[in-house]
Amino acid sequence: MARKTGSHSEITGPRIQEVALDLISRHGFAAVSMRQIASEVGLQVGALYNYTPDKQSLLVDLLIAHMEEALAARRIEARRVAGRPARNRLEAFVRFHISWHRTRGREVFISYMELRNLTDENFRKVERLRRAYEDELEAILTDGVAEGEFLVADTRITSMALIPMLNGVTNWYREGGRLDVPEIETLYWGLVARSVGLKP
Amino acid sequence: MARKTGSHSEITGPRIQEVALDLISRHGFAAVSMRQIASEVGLQVGALYNYTPDKQSLLVDLLIAHMEEALAARRIEARRVAGRPARNRLEAFVRFHISWHRTRGREVFISYMELRNLTDENFRKVERLRRAYEDELEAILTDGVAEGEFLVADTRITSMALIPMLNGVTNWYREGGRLDVPEIETLYWGLVARSVGLKP
Repeated sequence: MARKTGSHSEITGPRIQEVALDLISRHGFAAVSMRQIASEVGLQVGALYNYTPDKQSLLVDLLIAHMEEALAARRIEARRVAGRPARNRLEAFVRFHISWHRTRGREVFISYMELRNLTDENFRKVERLRRAYEDELEAILTDGVAEGEFLVADTRITSMALIPMLNGVTNWYREGGRLDVPEIETLYWGLVARSVGLKP
Repeated sequence: MARKTGSHSEITGPRIQEVALDLISRHGFAAVSMRQIASEVGLQVGALYNYTPDKQSLLVDLLIAHMEEALAARRIEARRVAGRPARNRLEAFVRFHISWHRTRGREVFISYMELRNLTDENFRKVERLRRAYEDELEAILTDGVAEGEFLVADTRITSMALIPMLNGVTNWYREGGRLDVPEIETLYWGLVARSVGLKP
């Protein structure tokens, strides 16, 4: 029955992740129990422990998966515009960041909210990935300054300022609102471009 | 003994608010019980109900108090720069926003995180205050456009983009870091100024 077990586990693993993400983003990590997750997935709590050693592991796996997917998607986008002027790469970053995160409001939410519930070791792992993502933006800013195109007083602070600005879209965007996604991207790109001294 | 009761209640009320803020920001609303709050304050849980009807009221009171204090402080700052060009009022807004919120990281945190735990009616109350605060910024942007000084494609989106950017400081600022508060304000003011087409 190895095949059947295998196919169950391929379905159940992602299902546990999805349920954990949903419950944690709605109630908060501290308020969600392994029993509740198991029950929502349709497992006995004992069976849940075959998939994950504890709730902390579930949380850190969610946060790491989110950041690794973001970094992987970003790498594809970066390759697409590699070698182009920093201005074009910055625009690609802004549009990518908004469109990729827009449908991942729950992940963005727990990525801020639940950092406090990570063990020190897990916090450092997640922080390293977040930093790697910020570094992508900072590298573009540094290149734009080197090309003599961007006016940036502090590339680190500017990266740390622009990312929460772009993440804000996940808080207020609603399907069928006044603006569609490309219009929103264009407005944010205008703000970002001007903030680094470009004419968008 | 009316006087003694009065003075106790003057101390106990704020103490309950402080404990609730601390516990909710650390563990999340759903994970904190009235029993836990009472115990931390040093009250019997029954006595806590003399101060507040339930946990929902405690939460909405915290969020409303935070927004009302922000609006009151902002009104004082707005009066100070009333009648000046939009450019000066925008700079005052940016510096005020950063310095006022910087020491209120817990309040900013629960103001985003715990909106989901408000009843619909309480959510609308808090949302109205948040909107009033955003309107302060939007009014400055509208004036700056009318003066022919600002380049803003959409004053509403720009307000909703800039506030999370400024709030971001509460996430990363640490006392004794590389930059002091006025330097941080100046860097953010530079970003905001350029984002609306000004030279800072």
